[in-house]
Amino acid sequence: MTWLDSSIMHTRGMARGKQGTTHELTEAKQGKYHYTMGPYSAPVLHIRPGDRVVVETRDAFEGAIKTERDLPSQKLEMPFLNPQNGPIMIEGAEKGDVVAVHIEKMTPRGPQPLGTCCMIQEFGALTGTYYTATLNQPLPEIVRKIRLDEENVYWSDRVTLPYKPHIGTLSLSPEIDSINSLTPDNHGGNMDLPDMGPASITYLPVRSPGGRLFIGDAHACQGDGEVCGVAVEYPTTTTITVDLIKGWSIEWPRLETDEFIMAIGSARPLEDATRIAYRELVRWMAKDYGFDQWDAYMMLSQCGKVRLGNFVDPKYTVGASIRKHYLRNK
Amino acid sequence: MTWLDSSIMHTRGMARGKQGTTHELTEAKQGKYHYTMGPYSAPVLHIRPGDRVVVETRDAFEGAIKTERDLPSQKLEMPFLNPQNGPIMIEGAEKGDVVAVHIEKMTPRGPQPLGTCCMIQEFGALTGTYYTATLNQPLPEIVRKIRLDEENVYWSDRVTLPYKPHIGTLSLSPEIDSINSLTPDNHGGNMDLPDMGPASITYLPVRSPGGRLFIGDAHACQGDGEVCGVAVEYPTTTTITVDLIKGWSIEWPRLETDEFIMAIGSARPLEDATRIAYRELVRWMAKDYGFDQWDAYMMLSQCGKVRLGNFVDPKYTVGASIRKHYLRNK
Amino acid sequence: MTWLDSSIMHTRGMARGKQGTTHELTEAKQGKYHYTMGPYSAPVLHIRPGDRVVVETRDAFEGAIKTERDLPSQKLEMPFLNPQNGPIMIEGAEKGDVVAVHIEKMTPRGPQPLGTCCMIQEFGALTGTYYTATLNQPLPEIVRKIRLDEENVYWSDRVTLPYKPHIGTLSLSPEIDSINSLTPDNHGGNMDLPDMGPASITYLPVRSPGGRLFIGDAHACQGDGEVCGVAVEYPTTTTITVDLIKGWSIEWPRLETDEFIMAIGSARPLEDATRIAYRELVRWMAKDYGFDQWDAYMMLSQCGKVRLGNFVDPKYTVGASIRKHYLRNK
Amino acid sequence: MTWLDSSIMHTRGMARGKQGTTHELTEAKQGKYHYTMGPYSAPVLHIRPGDRVVVETRDAFEGAIKTERDLPSQKLEMPFLNPQNGPIMIEGAEKGDVVAVHIEKMTPRGPQPLGTCCMIQEFGALTGTYYTATLNQPLPEIVRKIRLDEENVYWSDRVTLPYKPHIGTLSLSPEIDSINSLTPDNHGGNMDLPDMGPASITYLPVRSPGGRLFIGDAHACQGDGEVCGVAVEYPTTTTITVDLIKGWSIEWPRLETDEFIMAIGSARPLEDATRIAYRELVRWMAKDYGFDQWDAYMMLSQCGKVRLGNFVDPKYTVGASIRKHYLRNK
Repeated sequence: MTWLDSSIMHTRGMARGKQGTTHELTEAKQGKYHYTMGPYSAPVLHIRPGDRVVVETRDAFEGAIKTERDLPSQKLEMPFLNPQNGPIMIEGAEKGDVVAVHIEKMTPRGPQPLGTCCMIQEFGALTGTYYTATLNQPLPEIVRKIRLDEENVYWSDRVTLPYKPHIGTLSLSPEIDSINSLTPDNHGGNMDLPDMGPASITYLPVRSPGGRLFIGDAHACQGDGEVCGVAVEYPTTTTITVDLIKGWSIEWPRLETDEFIMAIGSARPLEDATRIAYRELVRWMAKDYGFDQWDAYMMLSQCGKVRLGNFVDPKYTVGASIRKHYLRNK
Repeated sequence: MTWLDSSIMHTRGMARGKQGTTHELTEAKQGKYHYTMGPYSAPVLHIRPGDRVVVETRDAFEGAIKTERDLPSQKLEMPFLNPQNGPIMIEGAEKGDVVAVHIEKMTPRGPQPLGTCCMIQEFGALTGTYYTATLNQPLPEIVRKIRLDEENVYWSDRVTLPYKPHIGTLSLSPEIDSINSLTPDNHGGNMDLPDMGPASITYLPVRSPGGRLFIGDAHACQGDGEVCGVAVEYPTTTTITVDLIKGWSIEWPRLETDEFIMAIGSARPLEDATRIAYRELVRWMAKDYGFDQWDAYMMLSQCGKVRLGNFVDPKYTVGASIRKHYLRNK
Repeated sequence: MTWLDSSIMHTRGMARGKQGTTHELTEAKQGKYHYTMGPYSAPVLHIRPGDRVVVETRDAFEGAIKTERDLPSQKLEMPFLNPQNGPIMIEGAEKGDVVAVHIEKMTPRGPQPLGTCCMIQEFGALTGTYYTATLNQPLPEIVRKIRLDEENVYWSDRVTLPYKPHIGTLSLSPEIDSINSLTPDNHGGNMDLPDMGPASITYLPVRSPGGRLFIGDAHACQGDGEVCGVAVEYPTTTTITVDLIKGWSIEWPRLETDEFIMAIGSARPLEDATRIAYRELVRWMAKDYGFDQWDAYMMLSQCGKVRLGNFVDPKYTVGASIRKHYLRNK
Repeated sequence: MTWLDSSIMHTRGMARGKQGTTHELTEAKQGKYHYTMGPYSAPVLHIRPGDRVVVETRDAFEGAIKTERDLPSQKLEMPFLNPQNGPIMIEGAEKGDVVAVHIEKMTPRGPQPLGTCCMIQEFGALTGTYYTATLNQPLPEIVRKIRLDEENVYWSDRVTLPYKPHIGTLSLSPEIDSINSLTPDNHGGNMDLPDMGPASITYLPVRSPGGRLFIGDAHACQGDGEVCGVAVEYPTTTTITVDLIKGWSIEWPRLETDEFIMAIGSARPLEDATRIAYRELVRWMAKDYGFDQWDAYMMLSQCGKVRLGNFVDPKYTVGASIRKHYLRNK
C-alpha cells in the first residue's frame, strides 16, 4: 500500500486506482505539435479514465537549438514555441469535472547533450521584457547545451546538479479561449512548477467536452522562479496515468504528493498569483477537510508553504501548500 | 569545528569568531521600546564586535492582547506597533561596513498562553488593505491565544505545530530616514523571514555611525508569506552575537546558514522583491565565489530557492538562496 | 480640408482617403456574436481597404439586463460576455501590415432606458476579484438602467453627464491565440479607452490573414479607469471606415486624433501597461518623426499625457500620447 | 469674488480667507535644506493660519548640475537629493487636523539656463532600477540644461513647451517616521503631480504637532508620469498661503482647483495608488457631498478623471478627480 492508495485520485477517481489500457503517444502519432491550448484542435488520442499514456515530449525549442552557436533570435520563431502533445480526449469528461494526471516517470530521450538552457532577449526575470518594457540594451544571447542522465545534470565543470524532472506545461482546454503554450492560467498551462514531477498528481478543472489534455515542456531540473526564463529543457518519454473525478468542482489547478496538497495560482503581479493559491487552499481546507475558514487562514499563516514556479512567463505561477500531516483529524 | 568556523562572520568578522563580553538588554534596561528605526533615537547599549547580547523582546503587540476578547481595533494604536529593542551601538561600525548578527537561541518568556495570533482589519494578504484599497466590508477581527513551549506550538485541539522560532524584525539604521517597524527595506526591518532563526547569521549594511542595531518581533513559527498578516507572536529571551565586517560592501540584507547563502529583497510588487533578491545573489556569486555572472544567472534558473517572507507588510520580503554545496570549487 | 486629410490613415492607407463601398453589418447579418477574438471563427463580411461598415453592436450584456431587478449573477453567464461583431475580413491584409479603423459615428439604438451600469460581484477596481483574491464578502450587486440620447446621459435626478461615446473593444485576431472579449492585449481587445470614439483612428497590427476585425462594447460615457468595472453600456449603430496600411509595422495598438498621437499598452501590473505605452511612443517618435530616442524620452517626461483606459479587466490599458503640435518640425 | 471664496480652504479654514502676515523663507533663513520629512528637525519658521510665506526653493539637485557635462553619477550623492525648505510650524495644528496650502505664484529664480533635466542611472520608468532590479547595462547619463521664463520652456531648437509650474514635493511630517524627500506617501512627499501648481489648494493631514510643513522640488513643466524620472527642475520663488482646518479628518492628501476636487494616493504597484485615490474620492463624495457611496462609485466609473503624477519614485502617485460641476445639488 502506497500513498497513492489514499490519494484523491485513487479514492475519488472513476477508475478507483485500477490501471487501464496503456497508450503510446509517439512523435509520429502526435504529428504536428500544438502551440495553443484550446477547443479548436483535432484530438490525437481518446482514452478512458484510468488509462496510462506514454508520451514522447519534445523540448521547449522543438529541437531547434542543437549547438551553443544556435542563437534563439535566429532559430526560434514566436509564437511557435513550447510544443505540446495532445489534445488527448478523456471519455466522459464534462465541464465541472476534474481530470487527475499522475506523472509516473520521465526518461530522457535522444542523443546527448540532451539539455538546453539559454538567455533569450527581453525574456527572463532580471531584464526588461516585452511587458516590463525598458529602453535598455538587451542582455546577451547565450546558449548552453548540457549533458544529463537519470541521475544528474552536468551543468558545468564545476557544478553537477541532481536530475529532478518535472513537466513545465500541463493543461486542459479553456472553454472558449485558445491560449498559447507560454502562458499559464486557470486551465493550467506553462506553470513551470518544480513539484509537478514524477510521484505527483495534478488536478485540472474540465471546461470543455473531453477535457482535451495537453502536455509538454519537460525540465530536467529547475530553480524556484526559473529566473533566467529557461530551465534545462529536454525531450522525454513521460508516462502518465489519467483519471476523471466527477462531483469535485475546482477553479484552479491543484497538486498532490505523498507529503502535501497544493493549490496553484497564475497571475500578475506576483502577489495576485500568491493570493489565488492561498485563497484556493483556504477554501479547499474548509470544504474537504473540515476546517473553519478563518482557522485555516490563520493556521496557514503559521505553516503554509509557498513554491514560486515561475516569474518570467506572461503570467507568474505560485503554489501554496500544507503538509497532509496537519490535515488529519486527531 | 562547526559550520560557524567557516562562516563569513567568523572568517571575515573583526572578532574572527572569538566570543566577547555578554550584555543583558532586559525590559528594564531597554525602557521605552522603539517603533521606528533611524538615526534619531538614544542608544541603549554599546558593544564591541564579537560581543553577545541577551535581549528581552516583547511581542509585536507589546503584550496588549492578553485574551481572545482583546480586539486589535481596541487594544492597538497605530503606528505604535511592533516594539523594537535598541538601538545597540557597535563600536567602529561605519557607513560601508557590514554588521553580522548570529542568532543563537530564542527562548519563550512569560506566562502562558504566550502566543498571539489575530486577524487585524484591512491587514493581511487575503483582504482589502490600506494600500490595496477596496470598499468591501473588512474581515472579522479574531484573536487566538496559543500555548507554546520550546518544542511545540499548540495551535488547536486538532493541530500541533513544531516550535520554529525566528526574529521578524532585524535592522540597522538607514542613513537619514527613520522607518516604522512595520516596514522592511534595504536596512532590514520587518522582513518576517522564517530562515532568520537560531543557527542563522544575518548580514546588514551599515549606513549610520555605530550601525544602530534594532531587534524584535519574535515568531514561534510562521508560514511562507505570513498570509493572515500575523505569525505566532510571543515575547522571548533572544541571544545574539554581533560582529563587524570591514571591507565588504552590500546593498541589501543577506543571510547564511550551514546549508545555504541567501540574498534578501523587500519591495512591491512581489516580483520586484524577488528580482532584488536574485540580482543580489547573482552579484554575490560573481564577486565572492568566482562565477561568471551569466553562468550564475542561468544556473540559479536551475537550482535557486525562493523563500517568501511576507506579502502583507508595507513592503514584501523575499529571500533567494543557493546551497553552499554548489558554491564549492571542485 | 480636415485633419483626416493629413492623418496617417489617409496618407499611408491603401485607399488614400478615398471612400469605398458601404456595408451593413446588422444583427441579422451578424447572427451569432463572438466571445473570443481569434483565427478560428467564420467571417461575416469581406471588405476592401477604404470601405465603410455600419455595425449594429449589442451592449456588453447582450441585452440580458433589462431592468434594475435583473441581477448580473443571475442573468449573465461567464465567459459569454461582451459580444463582438465580426470577424470582418479586409482584403489583402497580411501579417506585418496595419489596419486603420476610423470611427465616424456612434448612434444609440433601441428602446429606452438604453444604458446599463452595474456592480458585478468580484469585478471592479475597489473590490477583491478573481485575481486579487480576497476572503471579503463581495460588494452588493446593483443595477442601474439609464436613459441617454445623443446629447446626454441622464445618470440620476441629480447628475447629467455629456454623451461621449466610444468603442470599448476593438480587435484584430492574434496569430494563433483566441482571446476572450474581456481581455485586452497587443491585438487590441477590451481596452475601454475613452479616446476611441468618433473622430479617432485606431491602428491595429495584422497577425492573421485578412486581419479579422472584431468590434463591440460601446460606452455612452466612461471615466478614466472604469473604476466600478462597467461603463454606461448600450447598443449602437456604429459607422466605421477601414483601411489597410502596408509597410508600417507596429507591435501594439495606436490611436490618432486631430490633436494627438497615442500608443496603447495593456498589461498587469498597471506600471507595465504604462511602460509599454510610453516605450512604443518613444519608438514611434524616433522612427516616424525624426526624434533622437533619448530626446523623445526626456521630452515626454515634460509633455507626455497618460490616459488610464481600464484597471478592472484581466489586463489593464493605458494610452500615452503627445500633442501633434510638438511633433512638427519648425 | 473668485472660486477661492467658495473653496474648502476659505469656507472651513480658521482664517476664513483673511490674509495674515507675509513671511520670507529665503535661502539664507532656511540655512541647511532637508532631505527627510519627519518630526526630528528644527523648525525654521512659525506661522499662523492664514499667513503667507514666500519661499526660495532650490532645484532638486541643489544646483549641483550646472552644465551639460555635470554627470549625475559624479555630482549627486544619494540620499542627499531633492532639498526641502522647512519645517514650517503652523500654530495650533494638531493630529487629526488638516493643513491647506494655496500655491499662489511660482517665479523662476537665478541665472539661465535655469532648468535641468537628466537621465539618472537606474532611475526612471523605462529602465531597470534599484527596485525593478535587472542585469541590463544602464541607460546613458544625459544632462540637459534648459532656458525658461514665465511663458515658456525652451526645450530644444525644435520644441518649445509652455511654462506650467508646479511643486513636486509638499509634505507635513509623519507621526514618527522621517521619510526621505524622494518618496511620497500619505504625508504627501514627492508626489510630482502636475496639478499642484499656482491656483491649486493642497490639503494635507496633520500627524505631528504644528504640522511641520516642507516644500520644494519645483518643476517648470512635467508630463504625466514623469517618465524619464526627472522634470524640468528649477529654483523658484514660490508664494503660498497656509491655513488650518479643524474638524476635517483625512487620511491621504487632497487637492482642489476651480474646476475639480482630487484625492491623491501613493503606492506600488500603480493600481494600488489608483485604488487609494479612487476610494478616498468615493468616501469624500459620500461624506461631504451627500452621495450614496455605491452611486458615487458607479458614477465615477462614468466621469472620474485620473492624473498619473509619477511612476518613477519609490512610490507612484495618482490623483483621482471629479469636476465640481457634478457635485452640485440641482
